[in-house]
Amino acid sequence: MMNHETMTAAILNAKNDKGYSWETLAEEIGMSPVWTASCCYGMNTMLEEQAGTLCRLLDLSDDVEKLLQTSPHKQWGPAVPTDPLIYRLYEAMMIYGQSVKDVIHEKFGDGIMSAIDYKMFVDRVEDPKGDRVVITMDGKFLPYKRW
Amino acid sequence: MMNHETMTAAILNAKNDKGYSWETLAEEIGMSPVWTASCCYGMNTMLEEQAGTLCRLLDLSDDVEKLLQTSPHKQWGPAVPTDPLIYRLYEAMMIYGQSVKDVIHEKFGDGIMSAIDYKMFVDRVEDPKGDRVVITMDGKFLPYKRW
Amino acid sequence: MMNHETMTAAILNAKNDKGYSWETLAEEIGMSPVWTASCCYGMNTMLEEQAGTLCRLLDLSDDVEKLLQTSPHKQWGPAVPTDPLIYRLYEAMMIYGQSVKDVIHEKFGDGIMSAIDYKMFVDRVEDPKGDRVVITMDGKFLPYKRW
Amino acid sequence: MMNHETMTAAILNAKNDKGYSWETLAEEIGMSPVWTASCCYGMNTMLEEQAGTLCRLLDLSDDVEKLLQTSPHKQWGPAVPTDPLIYRLYEAMMIYGQSVKDVIHEKFGDGIMSAIDYKMFVDRVEDPKGDRVVITMDGKFLPYKRW
Amino acid sequence: MMNHETMTAAILNAKNDKGYSWETLAEEIGMSPVWTASCCYGMNTMLEEQAGTLCRLLDLSDDVEKLLQTSPHKQWGPAVPTDPLIYRLYEAMMIYGQSVKDVIHEKFGDGIMSAIDYKMFVDRVEDPKGDRVVITMDGKFLPYKRW
Amino acid sequence: MMNHETMTAAILNAKNDKGYSWETLAEEIGMSPVWTASCCYGMNTMLEEQAGTLCRLLDLSDDVEKLLQTSPHKQWGPAVPTDPLIYRLYEAMMIYGQSVKDVIHEKFGDGIMSAIDYKMFVDRVEDPKGDRVVITMDGKFLPYKRW
Amino acid sequence: MMNHETMTAAILNAKNDKGYSWETLAEEIGMSPVWTASCCYGMNTMLEEQAGTLCRLLDLSDDVEKLLQTSPHKQWGPAVPTDPLIYRLYEAMMIYGQSVKDVIHEKFGDGIMSAIDYKMFVDRVEDPKGDRVVITMDGKFLPYKRW
Amino acid sequence: MMNHETMTAAILNAKNDKGYSWETLAEEIGMSPVWTASCCYGMNTMLEEQAGTLCRLLDLSDDVEKLLQTSPHKQWGPAVPTDPLIYRLYEAMMIYGQSVKDVIHEKFGDGIMSAIDYKMFVDRVEDPKGDRVVITMDGKFLPYKRW
Amino acid sequence: MMNHETMTAAILNAKNDKGYSWETLAEEIGMSPVWTASCCYGMNTMLEEQAGTLCRLLDLSDDVEKLLQTSPHKQWGPAVPTDPLIYRLYEAMMIYGQSVKDVIHEKFGDGIMSAIDYKMFVDRVEDPKGDRVVITMDGKFLPYKRW
Amino acid sequence: MMNHETMTAAILNAKNDKGYSWETLAEEIGMSPVWTASCCYGMNTMLEEQAGTLCRLLDLSDDVEKLLQTSPHKQWGPAVPTDPLIYRLYEAMMIYGQSVKDVIHEKFGDGIMSAIDYKMFVDRVEDPKGDRVVITMDGKFLPYKRW
Repeated sequence: MMNHETMTAAILNAKNDKGYSWETLAEEIGMSPVWTASCCYGMNTMLEEQAGTLCRLLDLSDDVEKLLQTSPHKQWGPAVPTDPLIYRLYEAMMIYGQSVKDVIHEKFGDGIMSAIDYKMFVDRVEDPKGDRVVITMDGKFLPYKRW
Repeated sequence: MMNHETMTAAILNAKNDKGYSWETLAEEIGMSPVWTASCCYGMNTMLEEQAGTLCRLLDLSDDVEKLLQTSPHKQWGPAVPTDPLIYRLYEAMMIYGQSVKDVIHEKFGDGIMSAIDYKMFVDRVEDPKGDRVVITMDGKFLPYKRW
Repeated sequence: MMNHETMTAAILNAKNDKGYSWETLAEEIGMSPVWTASCCYGMNTMLEEQAGTLCRLLDLSDDVEKLLQTSPHKQWGPAVPTDPLIYRLYEAMMIYGQSVKDVIHEKFGDGIMSAIDYKMFVDRVEDPKGDRVVITMDGKFLPYKRW
Repeated sequence: MMNHETMTAAILNAKNDKGYSWETLAEEIGMSPVWTASCCYGMNTMLEEQAGTLCRLLDLSDDVEKLLQTSPHKQWGPAVPTDPLIYRLYEAMMIYGQSVKDVIHEKFGDGIMSAIDYKMFVDRVEDPKGDRVVITMDGKFLPYKRW
Repeated sequence: MMNHETMTAAILNAKNDKGYSWETLAEEIGMSPVWTASCCYGMNTMLEEQAGTLCRLLDLSDDVEKLLQTSPHKQWGPAVPTDPLIYRLYEAMMIYGQSVKDVIHEKFGDGIMSAIDYKMFVDRVEDPKGDRVVITMDGKFLPYKRW
Repeated sequence: MMNHETMTAAILNAKNDKGYSWETLAEEIGMSPVWTASCCYGMNTMLEEQAGTLCRLLDLSDDVEKLLQTSPHKQWGPAVPTDPLIYRLYEAMMIYGQSVKDVIHEKFGDGIMSAIDYKMFVDRVEDPKGDRVVITMDGKFLPYKRW
Repeated sequence: MMNHETMTAAILNAKNDKGYSWETLAEEIGMSPVWTASCCYGMNTMLEEQAGTLCRLLDLSDDVEKLLQTSPHKQWGPAVPTDPLIYRLYEAMMIYGQSVKDVIHEKFGDGIMSAIDYKMFVDRVEDPKGDRVVITMDGKFLPYKRW
Repeated sequence: MMNHETMTAAILNAKNDKGYSWETLAEEIGMSPVWTASCCYGMNTMLEEQAGTLCRLLDLSDDVEKLLQTSPHKQWGPAVPTDPLIYRLYEAMMIYGQSVKDVIHEKFGDGIMSAIDYKMFVDRVEDPKGDRVVITMDGKFLPYKRW
Repeated sequence: MMNHETMTAAILNAKNDKGYSWETLAEEIGMSPVWTASCCYGMNTMLEEQAGTLCRLLDLSDDVEKLLQTSPHKQWGPAVPTDPLIYRLYEAMMIYGQSVKDVIHEKFGDGIMSAIDYKMFVDRVEDPKGDRVVITMDGKFLPYKRW
Repeated sequence: MMNHETMTAAILNAKNDKGYSWETLAEEIGMSPVWTASCCYGMNTMLEEQAGTLCRLLDLSDDVEKLLQTSPHKQWGPAVPTDPLIYRLYEAMMIYGQSVKDVIHEKFGDGIMSAIDYKMFVDRVEDPKGDRVVITMDGKFLPYKRW
């Protein structure tokens, strides 16, 4: 029985064999690379057409196509991530989280930035002192309800 | 004896009493709001002139001015943050971290986005369906050394 | 310097001395009991008028009135709550969480129930076999964004 | 040897293949959807007739029918759930738990809401600003014994 | 402001000064020793008359009398207790918990032993090979609801 | 190679197939149900004759018979048990542990109740308001050595 | 109000001021150094005469004398000790614990070494390659009860 | 591919089949029982001759012989051991660790007892009140370097 | 499907069979031993030529060669390492970390030593009192950005 | 009563007031900076003369001088350090720990690098691409004892 974990392994395998990048795969289904990868890691769900295109490109079975459209139980590993790249993403949030919170409250009042109605992009910006990674987090502001 | 914790309390108190926002304080010292707040939370250090201006605006003592220029021991609370706004910043990293990692490696090769040579901005973007919070993370790419 | 913790202590003290219940306090400010209590525990913010009425009823200072309107850093104690009443609220979520998730996905598709655009009520329902506690959780459905 | 974990996998598989929802399965056995799902996740036990009907509908073996009637060792994963939907159920309890506790004590005295003599429902309520998820928790009040 | 923690300290102090044991205090208020101690440790609530008698015996203030009747937020320390006596109580549950669960299910069906409608006693039983501690746990059986 | 874990699975399987309860198995080997179950869960060791009788009744191999007589490495799962029945056994210890400790010290002086020289029983006591579970813990008192 | 923590601080202070070692203090009360220190750290209780002698030697108050005879709630800090000397004591148990367990079972059968009916000594043994610390742990063997 | 874990399983199996104790095995290779067992549990390394003798006695393959001479990655399970015998070894260290530390510092100055240049023995000492387990820990004292 | 974990096992196996040390393997590919080992443990990536040479020497498949050039998800086990050698590396950082931090800040100002633009060497230095392990950590200093 | 924590605060305060660096203080007492700082952080002990010189330079009391010579209970904060500089020291050990272990075993056999008979240095090495931090760890190799 295929589940989201084996689905991810199958996709990564086929993607490596056929030499696709997330960039090119995303282009083929008309979406963005981070979101496309996040579906393949079982963190988001594709529409039927998107899943179909992806599976045809990668020669993957109907099971994969179906699972890509199914709400997964989103899980991740240890509370403290150990991969150095991912750790630094957290570290930035740990160091600047309170400051970001303050500035959001000043600009919007009490509430949060949604992680559901949310988009995310990664860009490479050239810089003579060393190119820069620019990550954009774009989420709807949700004010707290009073009742 | 003043330390970074009591320094933060003193600044927040004076800021509230005088009605400054991080936005206006940042403008006065010619820097950005997230960075300015992060110094006051003991996560970064100001230059002498910046600390001087800030303390004059908020009528704060020399101790504060001095501490703002001193490398703090950067600490934060629980491994899993409980504030809903900050939690969602982490959640975004937990859900999309692996995808972001993949896309960065595709664009840059093996390495990380620096959280030290790093800048961060918060913007409010108007949207008829509800305004959006846009957070920009901008860090230098550092490739792994081979030796 | 008053903070959200000492604010809570001051309100609870005055409330006990004057013999108010959350029910009657909530009625006075025209809101519901759970929400009213949650503001006093530093988990939500009141509007100016609501905070003003509450502080006049309980003879509390301007500091309290001001803090009741300020976005707090929402914190709670241990990851595993030890109070038996609160533990059972969690236990219900642990036992039925996956089932609730499945039923929500069947009725709405992939997404979440907001804990921000959210209301909560407690009722006592008489029953000859022993009265029952009925808790209603009412939150907006937020579908995942695709991008 | 079949156990509760493989039982759950077998049921979910058959349910997907045959295209049943929890809603329709629950109707067939004359119970509610959350409870029906919770039995299949090994969190509650069915009566003989209910387990029999379910297994006939899904073409499942006698082993499944028998296990559905057996008290399982109820286990769940990490102390801090990572699925965003389930996390928000917890978050609501973390933010409002103390307030709910206070209001229950005001209405009932010292005691708890049972999570055993307990029922739970999920409804979709239409709303022009976005449909709402309404979850009802309904448990017997149990006063503390004095001895 | 007195709270449950300082209430406990005040009672223990007065109890030591006046040379009472839990046994004799419990007799005076007509209840059992474990329950009487548990109220003083903020884990249960006394009736008005019981709290009154206790405070007169120990010369304690009205604050204590009032708090003894108030539902506390029940908290305890570390997840793994370190006191050797208390650890062994846990160890017995860890070693025999699954066995006790099986035997209860055989005798009662699916459900739990209530820790709320619950009584507990400690006895000393003489034995030539060394006296024995006999602890009796007595709780109502609560069957799981089906709905 | 059979180990204590597969031994437990084999016994539970045979016990279910043949329709034995712990009650009846215990009677056959002349011991009590909790202890009998605890041996089968790898928490205690049987004498040769007891293991022999048990294995004949359940048609189990010599490996099982031998392992039932071998001191196991006693392990259990998570620090915080999640099964509701077992959790309440712990909860009772968390709420009343300190009180039980005090009463034992009053009756015996400094020392502990042994969890090794220890017996445990479960009884069903009829009660018109709902039958009760009565658990008896019976352990030797061990005073601290002075040297 | 003095408690076991302040008792320890008072004893350590007086001991340093008067220049006593645990060795000499132990000799004065006719007991061994580890045990004497363990009482002062609130891990064991002295007899009246021992506590009296110790307090006279160190000019300590009646409160200390009384507390030294009172069963403390034995607590220790973090699950993983950080002091290098204490860590190595644990490390030895982590590395050799299973081996020690096996050898004890071979020599005694199933049971444990008591940590209650227990004595402990530290000796310095001269050695030309560097003197050696020799620690002796001496506890009664307790066989598991069968019932 | 054999690793240290499967090596341990193979040795324990052969040892049980052939009826050896650690005592007798240790004698055959001219070492002590705790150390011999610790090598088989992958916590220490044997010399070629010792490994050879052991493997001939137990009819084990060259792979085992080779691995017994290879530095393993020393791992152990949970931070808090659950086996009652091993727990009590830790408990003794938790209760007496600080006292042992003090006495060592008094006898040796600042430094530690090595857990590397270290030997460990288990003895059975007859006693009419119940035989005693005597464990000897014998490690070189290492003073802190100053530089 | 080969992944980084099975890749590591395959390399270690081949390395043992053919009798290579990290020293000699590193020499063959013209790099240093620590870095060479870290690639094989999935912590760094090789260039095509380096991976090719290594695989030819060890007779390993193309899969290994490819994976050695692929950015791995860097993972490690428990937060508290249990291997005594590795633990002492951590211990040194725990004891001297704050001091090292102070000295770096004195010599460089606020910032960090990179663990990415980083090299590491292990040397054996002869010493009549016992040879010494000398580990050199060499990382680029990265000053905090101000913005 | 002064303890190691208040001792550290007093030294840091005086050091800042008088404008000393660890470099200059270390020179005055004829030792190295990391070691000097580590004594002031309560991780090592000074000789009488060293402590005397330091206290005269910083105008500190006899209490400080005495405590600097006393073996402290070495403690540090959270298991996962949060300061970015210190975190990277750990990260290097997490990434390269296993590789370093392998190389040490190849050069020395089974054993460890002592963290007690241990020295540590920090140097600034100029580099046109950005200066480098070079940390040298220098510890005695300790082979495992066989017995």
